[in-house]
Amino acid sequence: MNYQTILEDIKLEIKPILCDGKVADYIPALASIEPEQFAMSITLFDGTQYSVGDSEKLFSIQSISKVFTYTLALKFYSQEIHARVGHEPSGDPFNSLVQLEYENGIPRNPFINAGAINVTDALITYYKSSRSAYSEVIEFIRSITGEEDIYLNKVVAESEMENGYRNIALANLMKSFNNLNNNVFDVIQTYFKHCSVEMSTKMLSRAMLYLANHGLDPVSNKAYISPSQAKRINALMLTCGHYDASGDFAYNVGLPGKSGVGGGIVAVVPGKMAICVWSPGLNAQGNSLVGTKALELFTTKTGMSIF
Amino acid sequence: MNYQTILEDIKLEIKPILCDGKVADYIPALASIEPEQFAMSITLFDGTQYSVGDSEKLFSIQSISKVFTYTLALKFYSQEIHARVGHEPSGDPFNSLVQLEYENGIPRNPFINAGAINVTDALITYYKSSRSAYSEVIEFIRSITGEEDIYLNKVVAESEMENGYRNIALANLMKSFNNLNNNVFDVIQTYFKHCSVEMSTKMLSRAMLYLANHGLDPVSNKAYISPSQAKRINALMLTCGHYDASGDFAYNVGLPGKSGVGGGIVAVVPGKMAICVWSPGLNAQGNSLVGTKALELFTTKTGMSIF
Amino acid sequence: MNYQTILEDIKLEIKPILCDGKVADYIPALASIEPEQFAMSITLFDGTQYSVGDSEKLFSIQSISKVFTYTLALKFYSQEIHARVGHEPSGDPFNSLVQLEYENGIPRNPFINAGAINVTDALITYYKSSRSAYSEVIEFIRSITGEEDIYLNKVVAESEMENGYRNIALANLMKSFNNLNNNVFDVIQTYFKHCSVEMSTKMLSRAMLYLANHGLDPVSNKAYISPSQAKRINALMLTCGHYDASGDFAYNVGLPGKSGVGGGIVAVVPGKMAICVWSPGLNAQGNSLVGTKALELFTTKTGMSIF
Amino acid sequence: MNYQTILEDIKLEIKPILCDGKVADYIPALASIEPEQFAMSITLFDGTQYSVGDSEKLFSIQSISKVFTYTLALKFYSQEIHARVGHEPSGDPFNSLVQLEYENGIPRNPFINAGAINVTDALITYYKSSRSAYSEVIEFIRSITGEEDIYLNKVVAESEMENGYRNIALANLMKSFNNLNNNVFDVIQTYFKHCSVEMSTKMLSRAMLYLANHGLDPVSNKAYISPSQAKRINALMLTCGHYDASGDFAYNVGLPGKSGVGGGIVAVVPGKMAICVWSPGLNAQGNSLVGTKALELFTTKTGMSIF
Repeated sequence: MNYQTILEDIKLEIKPILCDGKVADYIPALASIEPEQFAMSITLFDGTQYSVGDSEKLFSIQSISKVFTYTLALKFYSQEIHARVGHEPSGDPFNSLVQLEYENGIPRNPFINAGAINVTDALITYYKSSRSAYSEVIEFIRSITGEEDIYLNKVVAESEMENGYRNIALANLMKSFNNLNNNVFDVIQTYFKHCSVEMSTKMLSRAMLYLANHGLDPVSNKAYISPSQAKRINALMLTCGHYDASGDFAYNVGLPGKSGVGGGIVAVVPGKMAICVWSPGLNAQGNSLVGTKALELFTTKTGMSIF
Repeated sequence: MNYQTILEDIKLEIKPILCDGKVADYIPALASIEPEQFAMSITLFDGTQYSVGDSEKLFSIQSISKVFTYTLALKFYSQEIHARVGHEPSGDPFNSLVQLEYENGIPRNPFINAGAINVTDALITYYKSSRSAYSEVIEFIRSITGEEDIYLNKVVAESEMENGYRNIALANLMKSFNNLNNNVFDVIQTYFKHCSVEMSTKMLSRAMLYLANHGLDPVSNKAYISPSQAKRINALMLTCGHYDASGDFAYNVGLPGKSGVGGGIVAVVPGKMAICVWSPGLNAQGNSLVGTKALELFTTKTGMSIF
Repeated sequence: MNYQTILEDIKLEIKPILCDGKVADYIPALASIEPEQFAMSITLFDGTQYSVGDSEKLFSIQSISKVFTYTLALKFYSQEIHARVGHEPSGDPFNSLVQLEYENGIPRNPFINAGAINVTDALITYYKSSRSAYSEVIEFIRSITGEEDIYLNKVVAESEMENGYRNIALANLMKSFNNLNNNVFDVIQTYFKHCSVEMSTKMLSRAMLYLANHGLDPVSNKAYISPSQAKRINALMLTCGHYDASGDFAYNVGLPGKSGVGGGIVAVVPGKMAICVWSPGLNAQGNSLVGTKALELFTTKTGMSIF
Repeated sequence: MNYQTILEDIKLEIKPILCDGKVADYIPALASIEPEQFAMSITLFDGTQYSVGDSEKLFSIQSISKVFTYTLALKFYSQEIHARVGHEPSGDPFNSLVQLEYENGIPRNPFINAGAINVTDALITYYKSSRSAYSEVIEFIRSITGEEDIYLNKVVAESEMENGYRNIALANLMKSFNNLNNNVFDVIQTYFKHCSVEMSTKMLSRAMLYLANHGLDPVSNKAYISPSQAKRINALMLTCGHYDASGDFAYNVGLPGKSGVGGGIVAVVPGKMAICVWSPGLNAQGNSLVGTKALELFTTKTGMSIF
């Protein structure tokens, strides 16, 4: 299959809707992003990459970081992590407190904010400090990407911290249910640091290869997690990866994936490749509008849906 | 692959947990079923079938009927059916009224009770009477199964009707939001008739082939729905097919599937086959306990997960 | 105090806002009422009545009937009635299903719809048939009013029945929790019959005297309920009598009272008198807009608040 | 009426249930209180006091402080305070986040925790600093009590701060809805300081006189608030003063009142007197078990209910 041509075709087809989305505006650092940008990359098992658009441009990975923190939590705690965070779709917006209160402080899954905050807390406990929890997460990201130069954006991290009242509320609510072990401020700050990491579509499509290949990175040959754990993560991405549009994404795209409000979406074609698309304008559910469409075009053109 | 051996192995392995589930007891007709029963069948694209257990024993398909009614609704109304019923996971028990009220009478998806009742109403409108809506649904089931002798169980249907207060509440709530067009009694009665249809694992594994093959039955060569519609149904089964255990099923089994409180579960291996397992004892989420385990064993042994 | 002058003053003062409310429009029989009407009556313990406006005009008492059905339920079941219906404010709209589901089919209080439907069911059980339950309620209303000619409006009752899907949903939900003993249709029909009774402000102000005087009608000298039961009803009217505007009514008017969507409001001045006001235009919370204002003017002018 | 005899009788009658309640145990400083204690005081308009039990023993006023902070907020902001905090019963536990989220960060009333935190924020804005907000509140309490020696208990205040995760969650949730102007930490700390003030039943029954007399302290002759504002506070105490047992309290006691988890309850007999009772054992709704009973006995013996 001529992937480069497919990507070029997609780039042409999404052009008319490039200005239809709305950039996340809850913090200034994200609100100022130029919306009409687009990049898309795929990485095959042998490391070959195909890209269109500004595929080396760094953007805020935001909630895509939840995949990486959950990977580490599953690696270290195995299924026991699910005593403190569930693995079912939530049927509520990504930051709702309602379900969290009704379910006694146990977040529905690791891909809603409360769940990822909880997972961050588990990593801080495992790594013994918030500082090393952050370091190990970024080291993991560097390892699966094969790049040393991956950093967080300090302005974004601080801006999140200043406006993250709802996330702080979620953390305190879990703490009141004894479902958070470390200092709330530390946990939230570490969580926001993960969200503020900046990567390009090239990096992210490379990073996700281990999930397309049963936990083993086919390029470096490193086994990061077990096949069963990779299956768990893929299943979770499919059922819970896109908040209240997860069902829609499963249908339209038909691949396990995870989106972030920075406009990035990663997706996995089991046994074949990993994909990343980026376009900062969001749809009503908070997922990249153009990114979702681009992935849909990709699976339609290639027939690579899991269904 | 030697499917017969795999099925025999599964039968041996599930034996120790055969009495761990709890038969549905909300109506006498289901409560009296002997729990320690088990049957499993697979049907390949050429029509070949492999089975273990009492695979010709008829059981109440219950919520599995939701797949068939939704198939017809999607066929006739196309995506417009989703103006009245959503396609996202619910995060609530299958019969909750809370979400239905908050979302103004639009059920979350066609696989929770409110959604299937709504779909039944749409079919009654399409077929012009509840009588013909029921006939057409059963004719569709007979067609995809290739068997004439499929009927409902009258005792079960009437028993459901006498105890279906919560479902009647759901229907009236939708009616109060103008999201139900026909007489509530007729809609509910028709809905319960679909649920009371009795089939065997052989029949059901045969019936689901069209969903494993892009809407086209590979045995009869009849195209029931479009590939895009088959994808929508499979995506929905994966994200919403098992109520509050859909995420768990996606992980443990890794196949699109749908369960019923009668103890049946159907599953689809895209491009390869359809499966049905039956064992009437249910787990805490209302899905067949042994059936879920048997499917998990099947995908582990065959590696046939979509992830 | 010159009550007649006070009432005349009130009539003048409310004139500018007479067309500000919105008539209930959920059934045609109510929607067709001319909104700019007003009547107000007070009845003293010796039976003296003062009135302004068309105080003999009959209107639909609607939810004011809940006071009478609850009175009878409390009389016959005493505090045991509260095993099936609570006595706390609901913090939700009058017809919400959410709280009813979370609290396992026990309505919050007898003055929300679910509670009054439940109370009606208890009366049917007590009186052994829905027919006699209705008869006894209307006989009770005639007795406390001292008038034989009080009837229901058949058109209204039937119209309610045809549009009462949400109330039927509430009844079926309670039935699913085993908190309704009789046939749902019978209970709902009887409930709507009570709501469709027609009375004038003169009749209703006379009818409420027993609640102003510890359960004993000071005119006829009949003791209908115990002082403790009258206190319970007054406390409930104050905390729950006006749906989501009960706190506002307690502050602005400062008297136990009960409103109906027909535009009537009854109120009790403990130890002194009973009041009824009617004006069909409703405010956003579903209470008579002019009626609420008129009662506020009355307690301001007379200083007769309980606070 | 011989009040002293009445109080002595009450003390005898509550003796058998003195150990039935359960002391608040969410912070050590409260959990260590000896449960079988009791004191009760009434203060008449001329300043005469009658007491039984250890009526000079200081206890933590906790949520009774909400009456004082709301009084000041109403005094300075008038009805405008209700743009940010409602005045309707909540129908939910005192510290629920659910309603707060559904209603966009506007707490239901000033007597649930979120409401009192919000009112504290309004006072900090008015007084320009959290320090002076605290000072002015304690000065107000000293003024209405006529005693200089009223202080907070530092151990309790700090202990609250260390365990107040749910309250911090409530504050952050309001902040996320732009319904909190000051620093969350400052607001919560000031709120907990108010809760940690210690007073005796003598002091508190004296302090509440202004609410029994239209806002004017009958002893000192100081007018603290307008009659209309006093009416608002009394109406709120009656409808919302006892969390999920407000309806029960309105019926059993029949007086406007406010309870705190320290075991104190204040109540107002409009036009006559103010009452305070204290006994640290709580009932299931979090109100003093013996205190509620003692007030019920008081209104039964004296006939002083408002109904």
